[in-house]
Amino acid sequence: MPGLLERYRHIYQLDADYPIVSLNEGSTPLILASAVARHIETLYGVKDLKVFVKFDGLNPTGSFKDRGMTYAVSQAKKQGATHIICASTGNTSASAAAYGARAGIKTLIIIPQGKIALGKLSQAIMYGASIVEIDGNFDVALDIVRELGKTGRVTVVNSINPYRIEGQKSAAFEICDELFDAPDYHFIPVGNAGNITAYWAGYRQYHDLGKSTKRPKMMGYEAEGCAAIVLNKKIENPETFATAIRIGNPASWQGAVDARDESGGDIGMVSDDEIASAYQFLARNEGVFCEPASAASVAGLFKACQAGQVKQGATIACTLTGNGLKDPDSAIRLGEADRATLPADVARIQAHFGL
Amino acid sequence: MPGLLERYRHIYQLDADYPIVSLNEGSTPLILASAVARHIETLYGVKDLKVFVKFDGLNPTGSFKDRGMTYAVSQAKKQGATHIICASTGNTSASAAAYGARAGIKTLIIIPQGKIALGKLSQAIMYGASIVEIDGNFDVALDIVRELGKTGRVTVVNSINPYRIEGQKSAAFEICDELFDAPDYHFIPVGNAGNITAYWAGYRQYHDLGKSTKRPKMMGYEAEGCAAIVLNKKIENPETFATAIRIGNPASWQGAVDARDESGGDIGMVSDDEIASAYQFLARNEGVFCEPASAASVAGLFKACQAGQVKQGATIACTLTGNGLKDPDSAIRLGEADRATLPADVARIQAHFGL
Repeated sequence: MPGLLERYRHIYQLDADYPIVSLNEGSTPLILASAVARHIETLYGVKDLKVFVKFDGLNPTGSFKDRGMTYAVSQAKKQGATHIICASTGNTSASAAAYGARAGIKTLIIIPQGKIALGKLSQAIMYGASIVEIDGNFDVALDIVRELGKTGRVTVVNSINPYRIEGQKSAAFEICDELFDAPDYHFIPVGNAGNITAYWAGYRQYHDLGKSTKRPKMMGYEAEGCAAIVLNKKIENPETFATAIRIGNPASWQGAVDARDESGGDIGMVSDDEIASAYQFLARNEGVFCEPASAASVAGLFKACQAGQVKQGATIACTLTGNGLKDPDSAIRLGEADRATLPADVARIQAHFGL
Repeated sequence: MPGLLERYRHIYQLDADYPIVSLNEGSTPLILASAVARHIETLYGVKDLKVFVKFDGLNPTGSFKDRGMTYAVSQAKKQGATHIICASTGNTSASAAAYGARAGIKTLIIIPQGKIALGKLSQAIMYGASIVEIDGNFDVALDIVRELGKTGRVTVVNSINPYRIEGQKSAAFEICDELFDAPDYHFIPVGNAGNITAYWAGYRQYHDLGKSTKRPKMMGYEAEGCAAIVLNKKIENPETFATAIRIGNPASWQGAVDARDESGGDIGMVSDDEIASAYQFLARNEGVFCEPASAASVAGLFKACQAGQVKQGATIACTLTGNGLKDPDSAIRLGEADRATLPADVARIQAHFGL
C-alpha cells in the first residue's frame, strides 16, 4: 500500500508534481478486540459490542504522528524549507526527525528533559535530529517553538501546522473504508488534542462525501493529572506516567470541545491506574502492546461502559496512538514478570514449566 | 488489510472453519530507498538501481516472526494445544507470546540470559509469557526446546515448525504483488536461516503459479562473528552486537544453501562495523529505523555492489526484519547524538540552533 497522501490523493487533491515525502505511512491494522468486548459484557453487562483497535503504533516511526508529518514535511519541502522544528513529548520529534531525514531537511527538536520515553529518545538520535532538552514541560517547549517560528527561518511542524491535522484525518477515512461505514463511537486519548480534532474532521468529511451513513460519537480521554479540558483550566504542572499525553494546555483545545459537542460525545478523564490496567489488559488478552498513553482510549471505553454511556450492539473504534516498544521501561516496571534464571538443563527446565 | 492467512487464503488453501489467530500481520511497507541507490552509484558506480526495503519491523510485534507465528499458533489452536514453547534471541519469543496471549494458549520461552535487547524482553513480559533465562546461547536453548517438544505436552513454535516457514513465504508474495513481478536480487539477513528459506520457497511458488516472470538471486548475509554457513562450520561461541542473528548453528542451514545454489545467489558475511554503518545510514538518510541485525541486508547490498556482484539497473528488495525500537540501547550507544541541555530561554535556544 502506498502512503496515505497517495492512497487518498483524490481527497487531498494534490497536483501530479506535489513532492510527497513518504515512508508508506498509514493503512495500519484495525484489529478485532474480542477480549475487550467479552470483558465489558462480563463486568458491565453491555452486550454484543464490536470493538476494534486502530493500531497506529504500526506507522513507520511507531505513532500516529506520521500521518500528519508526511503532509507537513512534504509541504515544507515544496516551500523550500531548510529547517523544521517541533516541541515534543517524544512521538512528534521522532516523526519529524524521520521525515526530515528523508526529505534532506534539518530537524530541530525541543523536549522536556528526563520526561521522554527511552525509545523515543533513541529515535531522535538515530534519525540525526538536533536535540535541545529544557528544564520545562511540553507546554513551555511549545511556547518557545511558536516564538522561533516567528523568525521565518524555520517551519513549525507541531499540530499548530494545519497540514498535520489534515494528514491525521486519514485514520478516520481508513476506519470507514474498512468497516464500510463509520463506527458508532470513537474512543481516543487526548493530550494536545490534535488527533481528536483530526478524526472528527475526517469523519465529517467522509460523511459529507457520502462515504459513510453516520458520524461517530467522539469519546476523548485525558489523564487525570492533566485533564485541562475536563476541568476547564490550564494545568500548570501536568502529571501522568503516560508521557505522550502529559500536556496541561492543549493546542487544539477548542477542536476537542467542538468534536465532543458536535458529535454528542464526551471528554472524560482516566486515572494512571486505569490506564495501566487497560495497557496490561491489551497485551495479555489481545496480544497488542501499545504505549501507556494509547491505552487511555480503552480505559475510557471501560469507564464509559460502566457509566452506561455505550449502547448494546454498538461498533466501536479505539485509537492506539503509539507502539509499546517506545517505552520499554514502563512495560518492565508494570508487567508482572513470570521470569526465572536456570541452568541449561532439560530436566530442571521441564520441571520449572510443569511439563 | 486482513492478516496474511486471510489475504493469501487462496494460496494457503484453508478451510472456511480454520481457526485463524491473527493480529492483521503482514502487508508491511515496501519503501523506496533512493538514498541507498544514490550512495551506491557514488561509491561503487553501479547505476540506476531501484532499491526497496521491505520493512517487516512494522508487523504487530515489530518483526517478521509474526508472519510464521500466525500460522503456527493457528495450527496449535486447531490441534487443541494448551502450551507453546520456543527458544529465542528475542523476536520469536515476543511474537509467540503475543499470538499465544491472543489464542488463550500459555507461552513458554527460553532465552540466553543478558543477550536479549531491552524492547524484546519488555514484550515477553507484557504479553504474559513464562520466561526462563539460561546461561547458554540460542543454539543451546533451541536444543532444550527440541527435547521438551518430544514430551508431546507442548508445541514447538521455532522455525523447525513447518508452519512458520509457510507463513513467512507471504513476504515474497507481497513484494511480487507490489512490484508486479519478482525483484532481480533479494538481500536478507541470515541468522537461523528460516527466513531466507521461506522467501525462496515463496518466490518459487509465485513463479510456479505464473504470478511472476522471474525469480530473484537470493543474497543472504551472516554476521562475521557467527558466519557458520559461509565458513561451513558450526560456531561454538557466536558473537555480534546484532543479537537477532547471533546464532552459530542455523536450524535451516540446508534451506539457505539451497536458496543460494538454486537462485544463483550468494551467502556472504558482514562485519559488525558494516552492519552498524548501514543501520545508521538507513535512519539518517532514509528515515527508516530498523534493528541492527536487519541492516545486515543493506550492508550486504553495499558489499555486493563493491564486489561487482550487482548489475546496473536492477530491481532490489532488502528485508528489514525488525523494528529499531526493539533495541533502543544500541541506537543510543551508536547514534552520534547532537544533544544539548539548555534553560527554557528563547534567545539561548535560537542561538544554539543558529536561527
